[in-house]
Amino acid sequence: MAKFPITKRNEIKRLPKRAKYEKSTIYAIIDEALYCHVGFVEGDQPYVIPTMHARMGDNIILHGSKASRLIRHVQAGNEICIAITLLDGLVLARSAFHHSMNYRSVVIFGRGHAVEKDEEKRAALEALMEHMMPGRWQDIRKPNPMELNATGVVSIPIENASAKIRTGPPIDDEQDEALPIWAGVLPMYHVTSSPQPDPKLGSAVPIPEYILQTKRWIQL
Amino acid sequence: MAKFPITKRNEIKRLPKRAKYEKSTIYAIIDEALYCHVGFVEGDQPYVIPTMHARMGDNIILHGSKASRLIRHVQAGNEICIAITLLDGLVLARSAFHHSMNYRSVVIFGRGHAVEKDEEKRAALEALMEHMMPGRWQDIRKPNPMELNATGVVSIPIENASAKIRTGPPIDDEQDEALPIWAGVLPMYHVTSSPQPDPKLGSAVPIPEYILQTKRWIQL
Repeated sequence: MAKFPITKRNEIKRLPKRAKYEKSTIYAIIDEALYCHVGFVEGDQPYVIPTMHARMGDNIILHGSKASRLIRHVQAGNEICIAITLLDGLVLARSAFHHSMNYRSVVIFGRGHAVEKDEEKRAALEALMEHMMPGRWQDIRKPNPMELNATGVVSIPIENASAKIRTGPPIDDEQDEALPIWAGVLPMYHVTSSPQPDPKLGSAVPIPEYILQTKRWIQL
Repeated sequence: MAKFPITKRNEIKRLPKRAKYEKSTIYAIIDEALYCHVGFVEGDQPYVIPTMHARMGDNIILHGSKASRLIRHVQAGNEICIAITLLDGLVLARSAFHHSMNYRSVVIFGRGHAVEKDEEKRAALEALMEHMMPGRWQDIRKPNPMELNATGVVSIPIENASAKIRTGPPIDDEQDEALPIWAGVLPMYHVTSSPQPDPKLGSAVPIPEYILQTKRWIQL
C-alpha cells in the first residue's frame, strides 16, 4: 500500500496510534470533505482561509478570483499547508479528561502553481464541480472565455501528508467505569435535506436525479 | 455595536459585501462551531491543526497535551491565526461560474499565553466542556491534580477578527435565468442522532436531559 514518508513535517507525535500515512486513507478523507482550510505565511503572519477543493490524482485543486490573496500566494509557489477535517462524533466520557471527538483529519504539505491553459483549467473546474456535486457538470452552462479568464486555478502536488483518525467509544480510567455518569458517543452527520429551489426557477424544472442520489442526503 | 477595526490583516477585499466586523456576529459563529483550525509558522513552514475551542469573553481557549507542538507554540506567544467555518449550504447555479456555498466563517488574529494557575485552568476546561456540551461539566468527574498538570491550556486574546457570510439563493446572470437547469440551495446541517452508549455503561444510567435538549439534535 502506498504511504507518504514520515518526516519531521508530517509526523504525528501526539497519540501516534491515531496516525495514518496510507495514501488510500488520506485520499478518501480529502474526497469526502466539501471544503478545506489553507494555511500560508505572509511576512511572519500566518493566515488560514477556508475554500472548496478537489483532488486530481496526487494534486489538490483550488480556485478563486485571480486577484484573491490566496490564489496569488499559492501560484507564487510558496509553501502552504492544507487541513481537512471531518467531525464524526462527540465523545462523552465519565471524566472531563477523557472527553474527546471522533474525527478524520488530514494535513497536506506542498507548493502550488497556476493552471494556465484553458483546457487544463476547464478540467480542474469540472473536478471542483464534480467534487461538490457529482453529475452536475454535464447539466450546467460551462464557463465562457470571460469567466474562465477571471478565475484563478491552482494545483498543489501533494508533497507530503498525514491523517489522524479517532473512532469508537470513550476510554475512561478503569476506576471511573462504575461511576453513575452517562458515557458514549453522539455521532455527528453533515447532511442535506429539503432543497430550496431558486425563487426564479420555473416550475417546469424538476430536481435532477443526480442531486436526489447524492450520498449527502439525510438517511439516519 | 462593537466592531473590530479594519486593518490590512483582517480586511476582506474579495466580495466585501459578505464581510462583517461586528463582535456580536463574529462571536456567535465562534460559539456555534465545535472546532477550529489554528494556523502557525515554524521556520518558514505554515501549519494548520484542527482542535476544540471555547470563547471566554474576548479570549479563545485551546487545550491539549503540554508536550504538543500546537500548545508549545501558542504559549510561546507566537502570532497565530484561527479560522472557524460553518458550512450552511451548497449553492447550485445554472452556470458553473456562479456555483458557491452558503457559509459563515471567521478569521481571528492574536498571540496566546499559557493559563498556569490551577483555578484559571479549571475554569478554562469548564468553558471548553460547556462549549462542546452545555450542562456536561456539573455531571462528570472533574480533573484531578495529575490530569490538570498534564493538560496544557492557552488563552488567545482576540486582537482582531473578521467574518464572511454568504446566504441566499444562487445569483445567475440574467440571460441564464431561463435556462432549463435546476438551481437552488441544498442546505447543510451538522447534526447528531442516535446516541451510542459506551458498551461498558451500566443499563441503569439514562441519557441525561441536557444531552437530549442540545440544539444539535436533528429536527428537520
